Amino acid sequence: MAEFSIDRFVDRYAARAASMTASEVRALFAVASRREVVSLAGGMPFVQALPNDEVVAVAHEVLTEMGDEALQYGGAQGLPGLRERLAMLMAEEGVVADPEDLVVTTGAQQALDLVGKIFIDPGDLIAVEAPAYVGALTAFGAYEPRYLPIEIDDDGMIVEQLEQALVRGERPKFVYTVPNFGNPAGVTMSQDRRRQLVSLCREASIPIIEDNPYGLLRFEGEPEPCLRTLDPDNVIYLGTVSKTFSPGVRVGWALAEPSVVQRLILAKEAADLCGSNLNMLITQRWFADDTRWRTALTGLVDTYRSRRDVMLEALGEHFPEDATWTHPNGGFYVWATLPAWVDSRGLLAAAVERRVAYVPGTAFYPDGRGADRLRLAFCYPTEDRIREGIARLGSLLLEEEQLYGTLRG
Amino acid sequence: MAEFSIDRFVDRYAARAASMTASEVRALFAVASRREVVSLAGGMPFVQALPNDEVVAVAHEVLTEMGDEALQYGGAQGLPGLRERLAMLMAEEGVVADPEDLVVTTGAQQALDLVGKIFIDPGDLIAVEAPAYVGALTAFGAYEPRYLPIEIDDDGMIVEQLEQALVRGERPKFVYTVPNFGNPAGVTMSQDRRRQLVSLCREASIPIIEDNPYGLLRFEGEPEPCLRTLDPDNVIYLGTVSKTFSPGVRVGWALAEPSVVQRLILAKEAADLCGSNLNMLITQRWFADDTRWRTALTGLVDTYRSRRDVMLEALGEHFPEDATWTHPNGGFYVWATLPAWVDSRGLLAAAVERRVAYVPGTAFYPDGRGADRLRLAFCYPTEDRIREGIARLGSLLLEEEQLYGTLRG
Repeated sequence: MAEFSIDRFVDRYAARAASMTASEVRALFAVASRREVVSLAGGMPFVQALPNDEVVAVAHEVLTEMGDEALQYGGAQGLPGLRERLAMLMAEEGVVADPEDLVVTTGAQQALDLVGKIFIDPGDLIAVEAPAYVGALTAFGAYEPRYLPIEIDDDGMIVEQLEQALVRGERPKFVYTVPNFGNPAGVTMSQDRRRQLVSLCREASIPIIEDNPYGLLRFEGEPEPCLRTLDPDNVIYLGTVSKTFSPGVRVGWALAEPSVVQRLILAKEAADLCGSNLNMLITQRWFADDTRWRTALTGLVDTYRSRRDVMLEALGEHFPEDATWTHPNGGFYVWATLPAWVDSRGLLAAAVERRVAYVPGTAFYPDGRGADRLRLAFCYPTEDRIREGIARLGSLLLEEEQLYGTLRG
Repeated sequence: MAEFSIDRFVDRYAARAASMTASEVRALFAVASRREVVSLAGGMPFVQALPNDEVVAVAHEVLTEMGDEALQYGGAQGLPGLRERLAMLMAEEGVVADPEDLVVTTGAQQALDLVGKIFIDPGDLIAVEAPAYVGALTAFGAYEPRYLPIEIDDDGMIVEQLEQALVRGERPKFVYTVPNFGNPAGVTMSQDRRRQLVSLCREASIPIIEDNPYGLLRFEGEPEPCLRTLDPDNVIYLGTVSKTFSPGVRVGWALAEPSVVQRLILAKEAADLCGSNLNMLITQRWFADDTRWRTALTGLVDTYRSRRDVMLEALGEHFPEDATWTHPNGGFYVWATLPAWVDSRGLLAAAVERRVAYVPGTAFYPDGRGADRLRLAFCYPTEDRIREGIARLGSLLLEEEQLYGTLRG
């Protein structure tokens, strides 16, 4: 009889499993759960602001009025009534959508996984922003792509870089972007860049994956048109109710061409048969009352705006002079750039010791860059905790700077 | 500017997407929803039997007492309290499980997807029962394996066939089996076969995937030991509450070695970040009341037993003499074998015209066999509808037989 090592299956895993290592973000979820640590790490929405009694009432109505449907299997595409509501939600941002062209997913994260599944063969090139949403890199990563990172600035993706890559002969399978209040950088793609990107990708026959979780969390200014609006044929649009309602119901969606939708539905069916009817019906009913969801969302946006203000003020007060950071007009995140000598990954343990956590910038690059960057989330902690957290982090950085100056001098 | 065909992305899809075609089971979900059709196709649990007021109360308690947690993101492994309950549920069938060794999934279907994701490289061989659960073939199929089909008889998988394949030099990545009241065949693996399989796979260092959705739906007789109990080290066990409680909460799980669990958690995180806290808390609380869940389950089992009896009786009365079928001691399905001239896939349209639906046997083989087989589900329709459905199907078969006899004669 054979003898086994601790990891008895070590020679049995698929090649893709080799790259599956515990993510920094995940490790930080554990850290963030300790009460004394101010977590500026996780992007948890402030669901405490939701009117609990109304959520209770909605769940009660769903289970008493349509319990048999709520507790049963459903179709893989998701409930038609919910898809209608989600189409209305997209209309808020100017996106015209036929509910038939939607597939409901387990959060937008599953839409990323299914997109990866139907488009990426091992070794395929995909274009992503640098930095990019870590969850997208993880989802796509399971299908073993190569990455074409496109830098961003305060106007979002630098489309010229993509154009130059195409001129060089690179052919990405698709371009992935979070154009509104992106994660992690908090920047928004300008209208010029949007038109440039859409036109370039149409010409090159490269589909765009537009991931828009934060679009309705705008604090000020006028929204830019969605990429999907600028070119409905060539843009696959991903949405979620995690930020406008609740991540606990795990409802996201993809809007795409019928041919893509058919494949996404089959991929969804293979992945988990169907979503939760109970959660879909609760979400459908939540958004059926226009006053209810708008009031709740306005409350959330007001909270996030104040927290963003507090974070920006605290950064100005406590961070080193040679640090810079983005000024998001919405969403959850500020992206800070520190002096080049900082190793934000190495610094995290010391930060947690000082009772503050963040996500090191390296998590958001497929190529190991970002050690001088931090993602700072202002969505979840109270204003006092944000001030305290930034103060703790600032004093740590200043001490490190002095130490570095001493070592160098 | 480029011109696009209807499927503008046709040259962009991954190779695996080429095999994604609308499944027969899925097409039948649509058919089954027409009231006048007696559907013996879909394996929908009879959730109408659940005490609705108790489900309503559980959801109410969860949302009022722990609304903030229910509506928030959670960890990718699933809530610890739920994992404890699921471990207790496994103990009902003699499986000893540390809650730390569980990962909660979106139904057991997602566990199948994640198992495929971490184990299967394109072209890898995997051993499956013939016939096998269609959802497993679909989930694994996305990772482009080759199949080693192992025949079954009334005692389940014919392990000698697997042994012969190993002797020939075949090395499957894993062996997948539904040992209790399997889908579609309704047969249960005998204890001798179980011991034989476990010993063979241990010797060959081939992990077993034991999928056990129906184990607690036993109508009579004594349970056989789970494969996981016979060899905890080498068996990855999959479970679900879809049949003991509700598929609408989409709660399943995998129990495995820590090294496998770590990879499943990372694959889960990549696939959809985390499950629904709301659904997990409802499920946890449902199973916290021992009397409640046992009473509900006993009610379901009694209903299914009666329906099985009615189906077997109706088959004896209405099916052709040269047809045979299995006699399941639990679960949802009877598997019928018809004379070899029958094409069950071709016959389906005529059956639906006669207002009865089933799943053609071809859906359950990776190699196109099974045209003379039918899966008949007795779980959902009432006894009267089962009688009526089998009568309709029987008369169609007899007519076809006469026609065939005439043509041949």
